Amino acid sequence: MNLLILHPQDLVSPTEARLHGRRAEHVRKVHRAKVGQRLRVGVLNGMMGEGEVLRLDEEALELRVTLQNPPPPKLPLTLVIALPRPKVVNRVVASAASLGVSRLVFINAWKVEKGYWTSPKLSPENLLEQLLLGLEQSCDTVLPELHLSRLFRPCVESQFPTWMEGTLGLVAHPGAETACPRGMEQPVLLALGPEGGWIDTELRSLEAAGLMPVGLGPRILRTETALAAIVGRLF
Amino acid sequence: MNLLILHPQDLVSPTEARLHGRRAEHVRKVHRAKVGQRLRVGVLNGMMGEGEVLRLDEEALELRVTLQNPPPPKLPLTLVIALPRPKVVNRVVASAASLGVSRLVFINAWKVEKGYWTSPKLSPENLLEQLLLGLEQSCDTVLPELHLSRLFRPCVESQFPTWMEGTLGLVAHPGAETACPRGMEQPVLLALGPEGGWIDTELRSLEAAGLMPVGLGPRILRTETALAAIVGRLF
Repeated sequence: MNLLILHPQDLVSPTEARLHGRRAEHVRKVHRAKVGQRLRVGVLNGMMGEGEVLRLDEEALELRVTLQNPPPPKLPLTLVIALPRPKVVNRVVASAASLGVSRLVFINAWKVEKGYWTSPKLSPENLLEQLLLGLEQSCDTVLPELHLSRLFRPCVESQFPTWMEGTLGLVAHPGAETACPRGMEQPVLLALGPEGGWIDTELRSLEAAGLMPVGLGPRILRTETALAAIVGRLF
Repeated sequence: MNLLILHPQDLVSPTEARLHGRRAEHVRKVHRAKVGQRLRVGVLNGMMGEGEVLRLDEEALELRVTLQNPPPPKLPLTLVIALPRPKVVNRVVASAASLGVSRLVFINAWKVEKGYWTSPKLSPENLLEQLLLGLEQSCDTVLPELHLSRLFRPCVESQFPTWMEGTLGLVAHPGAETACPRGMEQPVLLALGPEGGWIDTELRSLEAAGLMPVGLGPRILRTETALAAIVGRLF
């Protein structure tokens, strides 16, 4: 936890916060903070700054906060990922949040096992927690948008046009002739397939929606590895 | 497992392989391969091709193999990483292998907890297994070099000069004025610090060895995320 994220309800006044639970315990047991110590803090979806510890015990953490810095800018990237195995959902969500992705979309695909969609990992509570862990890691306060699109075609046909406005659309596809571009300034929407790839009709739908197939090299990477490598390459 | 890696001792003749254990079990239980089916295979540190299943039961997997393709080229990258927490060692090693890094070096640093060096995760058997898992994932047969440098200065002063020959040296450092370069053609050695960063004397040693401090943006990333983002950016 490199940034303590305060929720609006933690602020008892514009300059004072009081919190309990996981975050307070982390500050007490892992950071082993003392009264008087200053921590890096930020308000969820708001400004960042410092918090001076006024009180820290088993009951609560109280801070005097000064907020003067804006959070780092988000990457103009919509990442559409075929829903991965439940086992890796947490890592993918936290990692995408830490990298500064603006919008993360889990979408269905022919090669996504149906059971993945009923995993408790996709509960709103768990997804929010993973997003927050990613922000705490990377020192950002702004939650990315997160969408679950359990139907592939309606999402591509009705939702993509909005997301694609003024945006370069790319679909990662092994064997594509064009290599994934690098060092982009403009907004990008990139679709990343499931293990085993997109099937032909999916690829045709994505191309019809304006996405250009691009290759990511000869190696097959795990979703969480591919995602970071793509972000590193694009921005 | 996208590639079944055969070890030299699995080859009972130049065109036939016989194996047991984890890999055979994976082919039987996860791939659910049948006699006659063709699998993507490769010989450790050698050629890749296809293997036709001749026999598959609880005792053994027998294959007729044809090897005609070279493995994908390695990235000309030496990645020097301050030893991460044991919990993430496996992911970092497998991920680096899957990304095609030529040489991975775990090095000591002031902010690396001493106990990390005695973790069973650093046993040669475990490290080899993680490297193989990375290669199986990404479809490569060539093991990267892996070094454990428990002493920082001797490694930087005596070992780096050899690794740095004809190579661009970079050290990731938050706040560096120069941004990490992208789309490199030449060999690169990049040093990535521990949680909390390099201390000043370490940074000075790395600079004296010819490494240029470069920034990776305002976000603090987990080692395994940073590593993939760096590879995506550099190559």
